[in-house]
Amino acid sequence: MARLPVNPERFLSDLHTLRTFGASGVGKGVIRPAFSDADIAAREWLMAQLRDVGLQVHVDPMGSVWGLAQGPSLLLGSHTDTQPEGGWLDGALGVIAALEIARAAQEAGGPAVSVVSFQDEEGRFGVTTGSTVWSGALSLDKADRLSDRDGVPLSQARARMAHLTDDFVDPNRFTGFIEMHIEQGPWLDQAGQGIGVVTDIVGIRDMRITFEGEQNHAGTTPMHLRKDAFQALSAFNERLNAAFDELVTPSTVWTIGHVSLHPNASSIVPGSVTFSMQWRDSETSRLEQMETVVRETAAAVATDIGVTCSFGPILGLAPVAMNARLKQALRDSAAEIVPDLWREMPSGALHDATNVAAHMPVAMLFVPSIGGISHAFEEDTNESDLVNGLAVLAGAVTRLTN
Amino acid sequence: MARLPVNPERFLSDLHTLRTFGASGVGKGVIRPAFSDADIAAREWLMAQLRDVGLQVHVDPMGSVWGLAQGPSLLLGSHTDTQPEGGWLDGALGVIAALEIARAAQEAGGPAVSVVSFQDEEGRFGVTTGSTVWSGALSLDKADRLSDRDGVPLSQARARMAHLTDDFVDPNRFTGFIEMHIEQGPWLDQAGQGIGVVTDIVGIRDMRITFEGEQNHAGTTPMHLRKDAFQALSAFNERLNAAFDELVTPSTVWTIGHVSLHPNASSIVPGSVTFSMQWRDSETSRLEQMETVVRETAAAVATDIGVTCSFGPILGLAPVAMNARLKQALRDSAAEIVPDLWREMPSGALHDATNVAAHMPVAMLFVPSIGGISHAFEEDTNESDLVNGLAVLAGAVTRLTN
Repeated sequence: MARLPVNPERFLSDLHTLRTFGASGVGKGVIRPAFSDADIAAREWLMAQLRDVGLQVHVDPMGSVWGLAQGPSLLLGSHTDTQPEGGWLDGALGVIAALEIARAAQEAGGPAVSVVSFQDEEGRFGVTTGSTVWSGALSLDKADRLSDRDGVPLSQARARMAHLTDDFVDPNRFTGFIEMHIEQGPWLDQAGQGIGVVTDIVGIRDMRITFEGEQNHAGTTPMHLRKDAFQALSAFNERLNAAFDELVTPSTVWTIGHVSLHPNASSIVPGSVTFSMQWRDSETSRLEQMETVVRETAAAVATDIGVTCSFGPILGLAPVAMNARLKQALRDSAAEIVPDLWREMPSGALHDATNVAAHMPVAMLFVPSIGGISHAFEEDTNESDLVNGLAVLAGAVTRLTN
Repeated sequence: MARLPVNPERFLSDLHTLRTFGASGVGKGVIRPAFSDADIAAREWLMAQLRDVGLQVHVDPMGSVWGLAQGPSLLLGSHTDTQPEGGWLDGALGVIAALEIARAAQEAGGPAVSVVSFQDEEGRFGVTTGSTVWSGALSLDKADRLSDRDGVPLSQARARMAHLTDDFVDPNRFTGFIEMHIEQGPWLDQAGQGIGVVTDIVGIRDMRITFEGEQNHAGTTPMHLRKDAFQALSAFNERLNAAFDELVTPSTVWTIGHVSLHPNASSIVPGSVTFSMQWRDSETSRLEQMETVVRETAAAVATDIGVTCSFGPILGLAPVAMNARLKQALRDSAAEIVPDLWREMPSGALHDATNVAAHMPVAMLFVPSIGGISHAFEEDTNESDLVNGLAVLAGAVTRLTN
């Protein structure tokens, strides 16, 4: 079984060309958020490449760019939009790898490989917005009412690409989807490994919790009579850390990332606090057990400190297990290309693959992030790791289509 | 020794009249911040009352209103400005009690009692701004550059009273200062006591502390590699509470009232946090020991969690002990008027008396705050306690001037 003859130089050259759209900041930084001038220009450049390859170019109403092979095909890709301050790889890596593999496949007379660059994975208007709408999880009507931080509605932003767009692409034309992406975490880099084959995209639960105490004068209110909302938050955090210790795995994560204290003045005992509580794990049962611990710990702290607690709506995304057959092809390919230098691992970040999984088998592979850095100008990966990633993906495509 | 024949009905009537300037909200709420229309109108009303009593009326450049007796005199008073949402008593009580005692003294042919209502005690432009400038601790030039939350400079605000003002009053004309105020805390109310004779106005230390960690992706950064600034804050708070337990008295207080997390987003491990750390105690040595504990605890937490810590400038106000002779007069008077229903106690709040103490002997007395509530529309005190407060103050004046 001959692997597709991909061209690493062409692949790296295309990656560097794509970076010129929005190149900014230090190192290899890029500013190319969804629907910006740089993003639309990059998508038009990608359309030209896909057309040159011999694929049918198609832009859906959300601005996701497709290069479609004839007949049933394997879909590869990711996204080319970036964070407001992003790196040159992130999702761009998966799109340019897909372009190179589709080009090699066309040159070789097969197999049938299609390419996608989803729009707004980075969430100017939500989270993985382009693939969410394409998958049917959110209607275009509802999505149009989303707005960015500056109050620009999605409807207005996507009108900038209206001259390019057609209908949504039918997911039934694809036999599966593989997304290559940078890890965005430290595991591969720290272990000196080159490839991560993803087992699951972790599930997320995210909620707001509020403690209401009593706002009081910070000079005249003795400690034993205070109902201090900040003290409730601090006690909750400490007890939660202790309770989670019994329950979690090394890849479970939880975060209090947002804290809003009221009235937030140095001479006033805080009357209330609202904060975010987010946790991620690859097992639904563990996500549920953690939710029970969160609710019980908050309630117990509230009782002990004499405050009240209330919970906002919980946002939940279920874990997505990667397809066994696609994952096996990635494993076999990694074992060939980088023997002993690959691992299986969950993805702690969300990806477009989460949405695509509603319609077909999906899998993912990671290459290392130097220092674990992503969503920053400093994001980077060694060229040898990029090229190995391309080879592992090409090998998996060969295995799946022979 | 005959006590001054004060008139409780006249005193209560004046208090209710003063409340009509800015009367707002539920209960007996008042909105009369410094230099507002209501504040200036209230000060003009007070000037008329002082003139009727036979005192020489004087407004200093800061807008503090004075009623001056001839020759050396004992100064009584407080402030008539309120918080943005305040109560009817707070400092107004001390001013109207001073007015009634000065009036009774003028009617009785002595002693010489002067009256003051300092401007901006509530800190629209700082803290106890009017008495701070009058005392010389802050120059008028520097004060003029202070601005309120809306960016209005003090120079512009005080220009509204320019047609009323004259020079600063010479502090050497006064033999001492006694300020009556509501307690603003729960001690007297909870004990069913009517009078608190203040021993000290506590000292305050207030600083900003910053923990700098590493901002990271909340999905892809494993717990053991995080340098989470919020976790540093929480650990600091817990360890500080434990360390202070060994050191403090029941009237020592400390507060983390302001927290600013960066970037404050639910999906990002917090990279930094800046927070306020304030503590109050009546002993300078304990304030110093607490500062050592604060600095050592923050440094130890920073080392343990792998973040850095830095300290902003520390703002400090030394404790002010009340004058022994004035305090004894209040004690003797309280023992006569409300035997067994008074106590000695520190003041956890700042007062104008802190600044006046730079120039003359000062003392303070408290009446109860129902439920310990102040700086709120719901602030109140039973009329019998108000009248007892007036009688104790009048008795002390009599003792000090015979």
